[in-house]
Amino acid sequence: MHLFHCTELSTEEIELSEDEAHHAASVLRLKVGERIGILDGRGARVEAELIEVGKRAVIARSVSRHLDPPERNARIRLAIAPTKQNDRLEWFVEKAVEVGVDRIDLVLTQRCERTRLRLDRLHRVAISAMKQSQRSWLPTIEGPFRSEQLLAMDLPAQRYFGYCTGEHSPLMKVYDKAQDALILIGPEGDLTPLEAEQLLEKGFVAVSLGHARLRTETAALAACTWMSLTQQIG
Amino acid sequence: MHLFHCTELSTEEIELSEDEAHHAASVLRLKVGERIGILDGRGARVEAELIEVGKRAVIARSVSRHLDPPERNARIRLAIAPTKQNDRLEWFVEKAVEVGVDRIDLVLTQRCERTRLRLDRLHRVAISAMKQSQRSWLPTIEGPFRSEQLLAMDLPAQRYFGYCTGEHSPLMKVYDKAQDALILIGPEGDLTPLEAEQLLEKGFVAVSLGHARLRTETAALAACTWMSLTQQIG
Repeated sequence: MHLFHCTELSTEEIELSEDEAHHAASVLRLKVGERIGILDGRGARVEAELIEVGKRAVIARSVSRHLDPPERNARIRLAIAPTKQNDRLEWFVEKAVEVGVDRIDLVLTQRCERTRLRLDRLHRVAISAMKQSQRSWLPTIEGPFRSEQLLAMDLPAQRYFGYCTGEHSPLMKVYDKAQDALILIGPEGDLTPLEAEQLLEKGFVAVSLGHARLRTETAALAACTWMSLTQQIG
Repeated sequence: MHLFHCTELSTEEIELSEDEAHHAASVLRLKVGERIGILDGRGARVEAELIEVGKRAVIARSVSRHLDPPERNARIRLAIAPTKQNDRLEWFVEKAVEVGVDRIDLVLTQRCERTRLRLDRLHRVAISAMKQSQRSWLPTIEGPFRSEQLLAMDLPAQRYFGYCTGEHSPLMKVYDKAQDALILIGPEGDLTPLEAEQLLEKGFVAVSLGHARLRTETAALAACTWMSLTQQIG
């Protein structure tokens, strides 16, 4: 059954957004009477029957409704310095959503070479990955923030940052899967010593992800994979 | 220091391959007298001084030589059904080399939609990722093989395959980091019941990688990340 995303699922008749309507009518060429699944990204799954498939609108009538509980006990939050190449950031978002993450913060650190971001594209990539992996919770993507803005937020008590300078405990040794966690992964040129100091002052712990030097998006995905899979051991 | 790959490092004067010479001379515009690092992909790291940088040849003279031991105690081998889109397979190779893998086997399973593979491209991606992550061991990429060919090989005793059908133990629960391991990740449409049966007969154990449905390349990288990071906990 094809899955669609719609933020508003409380009514009996559900009209798909422009993007999703185009996909249903022109790409998949679905017909009136066919069944589809609709996700709101906040746990709700609706099975619905198409009652109108047109150029102007695609409308479905709800047949059954189900609410999935949150996917994990402790939240996983990834803060990442946007990569120079946009496709690497998009790739990270796709894979992190598949593997499991609750929130992604885009943080413009000192040595980050990008300031313009296509948040709408990242959001679309996330929705597509949610449907692909048949999840019913859509991670939020927030920012871009300056580091100081991130540090001024209400953050989980378990806080890490990847730091290439010096020797640090691996994340795999210190991560507590029972608690919400945030990890910040810096840009290609690493965080500056001043940024590291500010993070340490705010209770962040410097960690490594093994011995090799990883690209920003690889390190972020490795951290995400470790935390999500650890929580799924049961 | 810029890193280059060259399979033959035993002589004092080292001539870079055409690709690497082009990169040194035309992209990085290095000059005679500059120092470079050269890796053979089998643990040897040579520091060398450029003595000729020309259109025809780039030659360096070895200054010091170092042999890195293998990166991990137990080998990690990933067998993957090539994805329909080539860039997804290339992406997997890049990330797996960064995160840590010893060998990648390309396996043409029943429902695999690709038969033509650009092995030369995959090899180049692997070399680039090795240099990027400053590793000195280059994973081998083998195949394409049919499933039966893979099963006829001398395989490690610890053997898994990702299987979406039925309920299985997560890899994270059963993986023994002290032993060499092989995991096979099938194509988008999953392995066939017959293939699963043949694998079970050959001592493979069916595993999951959590609850979500992962794309082939995502599942393969998640497995690779788990095994490599587990070995690095120390």
